[in-house]
Amino acid sequence: MTKALEPGARIGILGGGQLGRMLSVAAARLGMQCHIFEPAENPPAQDVAAFVTTAPWTKTNALKRFGQSVDVVTYEFENVPTDALDTLEAQVQVWPPRRALAVSQDRLIEKEFLTGLGLATAPFAPIVDVKTLGTALGQIGTPAILKTRRFGYDGKGQVHIDETMTAHRALDAIAGKPAILEGFVPFSAEISVIAARSQDGQIAAFDPAENVHSAGILRTSRVPANVPRSVSTDAVLLAGKILNKLEYVGVIGIELFVTPGGLMVNEFAPRVHNSGHWTMDGCAICQFEQHIRAVAGWPLGDGARHSDVEMQNLIGNDVAKLPALAREARTAVHIYGKSEVRDGRKMGHVNRILGPA
Amino acid sequence: MTKALEPGARIGILGGGQLGRMLSVAAARLGMQCHIFEPAENPPAQDVAAFVTTAPWTKTNALKRFGQSVDVVTYEFENVPTDALDTLEAQVQVWPPRRALAVSQDRLIEKEFLTGLGLATAPFAPIVDVKTLGTALGQIGTPAILKTRRFGYDGKGQVHIDETMTAHRALDAIAGKPAILEGFVPFSAEISVIAARSQDGQIAAFDPAENVHSAGILRTSRVPANVPRSVSTDAVLLAGKILNKLEYVGVIGIELFVTPGGLMVNEFAPRVHNSGHWTMDGCAICQFEQHIRAVAGWPLGDGARHSDVEMQNLIGNDVAKLPALAREARTAVHIYGKSEVRDGRKMGHVNRILGPA
Repeated sequence: MTKALEPGARIGILGGGQLGRMLSVAAARLGMQCHIFEPAENPPAQDVAAFVTTAPWTKTNALKRFGQSVDVVTYEFENVPTDALDTLEAQVQVWPPRRALAVSQDRLIEKEFLTGLGLATAPFAPIVDVKTLGTALGQIGTPAILKTRRFGYDGKGQVHIDETMTAHRALDAIAGKPAILEGFVPFSAEISVIAARSQDGQIAAFDPAENVHSAGILRTSRVPANVPRSVSTDAVLLAGKILNKLEYVGVIGIELFVTPGGLMVNEFAPRVHNSGHWTMDGCAICQFEQHIRAVAGWPLGDGARHSDVEMQNLIGNDVAKLPALAREARTAVHIYGKSEVRDGRKMGHVNRILGPA
Repeated sequence: MTKALEPGARIGILGGGQLGRMLSVAAARLGMQCHIFEPAENPPAQDVAAFVTTAPWTKTNALKRFGQSVDVVTYEFENVPTDALDTLEAQVQVWPPRRALAVSQDRLIEKEFLTGLGLATAPFAPIVDVKTLGTALGQIGTPAILKTRRFGYDGKGQVHIDETMTAHRALDAIAGKPAILEGFVPFSAEISVIAARSQDGQIAAFDPAENVHSAGILRTSRVPANVPRSVSTDAVLLAGKILNKLEYVGVIGIELFVTPGGLMVNEFAPRVHNSGHWTMDGCAICQFEQHIRAVAGWPLGDGARHSDVEMQNLIGNDVAKLPALAREARTAVHIYGKSEVRDGRKMGHVNRILGPA
């Protein structure tokens, strides 16, 4: 039986963006204090965190002091540098486990992991140069998507390949980085499942959400997803498979395509996920608290949904609509406290309560 | 038309207890930063506030610096010293208005204010000495309650008088302080209404809750209250009367007795209120956000209730039940981050979602 952290315990969070911010609020709700480690000045999380360290990932002494000050470490994004993790893991437990991070940081390893579990993915091939890309295009065909293996998010590091594009130009567009080619999947909907696994191996999943992306960025998530009950069940079952195989602890976000042949896994993120923000206003226990419960050794909370919700991201200048959004009935506004508005930057989100679940 | 504070604005909060803590989280959700002023070290609010000043109320320079650093000031408790308010009001707007504080700080003035509005209260009489107490007991009879005019909370500064108690002993029990004698009201239920008024004069009320007190401390609040619809409507209407008369801005908590003759006002608190904690898990917009919206010049949010909820306070050692509470279905735990458990101290609360509203 796991020893649960008690009120007063300290949670270290790597990264101080909006996910770190919402994790910190959830931890405080359980009586715990958060210590944020973030290289950038004035991170969104600092307004609601007990402690903040501002230092680059390479500053080993700062990482060590941070690690000594907390009872457990977690992270809000999947590109935490390996060296920083090495330093921390020598001192303190880091959840989710290293293996989940290693798998999700590399699109090729991720796809191989998923197919190794017997889960369906888009057809894919590793790409190292023009020759391998040419061969892969011959097998997979167009349209296809060339993606860097590492450090992609919100549609960055990706290029769509149709019959008018040459292998050369496609590789130039991603600066010749190690990549994978993914075949285009004809899907009827994009859904995601936000699931969690506790230190005792208990698993819980929120109801799958239906997601709409545009220009590679999530725009809306809606629960319930407009899919048959059996599809929702499949989504939860495959989440369980992934969580158990990784001996995972914490919340995971798994993006799925609904295809005529069944569910296909697009990718997973070993952290709380934008498509789970609806849980803040649709459930007694939200994804952020669920994650904190897991990393703190608590039992998972009840993620039952009490309301149907549509989450809409406020991206860039969308935040200028705030005065109108603040007047909407049954609408909860969540603003991230970022001082500078930039195109494509996630500034906040709103959750619209559509009715009882 | 009021100029609304924008994301990035700073809210000053006098007092760093659990109410200040939950106000700070709500302000952050709207993109604002909080600065807490609190004489005690390590206040619960500090874990989720951008700035904290630790200084006594008498330290004028600290108050001035605090006032200069924020765009508006509010408070989490009604016993803010008058001198501190004088210092702050010379620099910055303080909401709710001074008059609300002055009225609620003194039980005699409060009762006279309420009866002046035509609202029913328990019979009462001002007490200055044994002679006035003797006369008042002759008029009001026993059982009755002798209460200090100022600085009472959670049942402190009160003594029950029955036929066995002499006026002398009763006055000794409250150290001879200026007091009022209140007649005992035979009520069928205690309810409260949490209402808000915006800077534009817009009024909104949450559904009245039914409260159970024990030893002078609130134990549970439940919505909906088990009262006829007309009683709920009356509660909201009288809240509107009080808010308008005080030209109030912010959230007010009004405690009411349900009697055969209709509603009787017990007292009001010019702040967010323990009996409104259920709104955190029962509404899209909770009382804390509603208060921040009002003091920030925003439109009030939609306080419609999506779920029936029972709030239970965790008092003193109740917090030891946390491991069991954390496993309950449809139950949200809220812990206040107080390091020391003391008898009668509010350590947290749980909200149990009972079903759709």
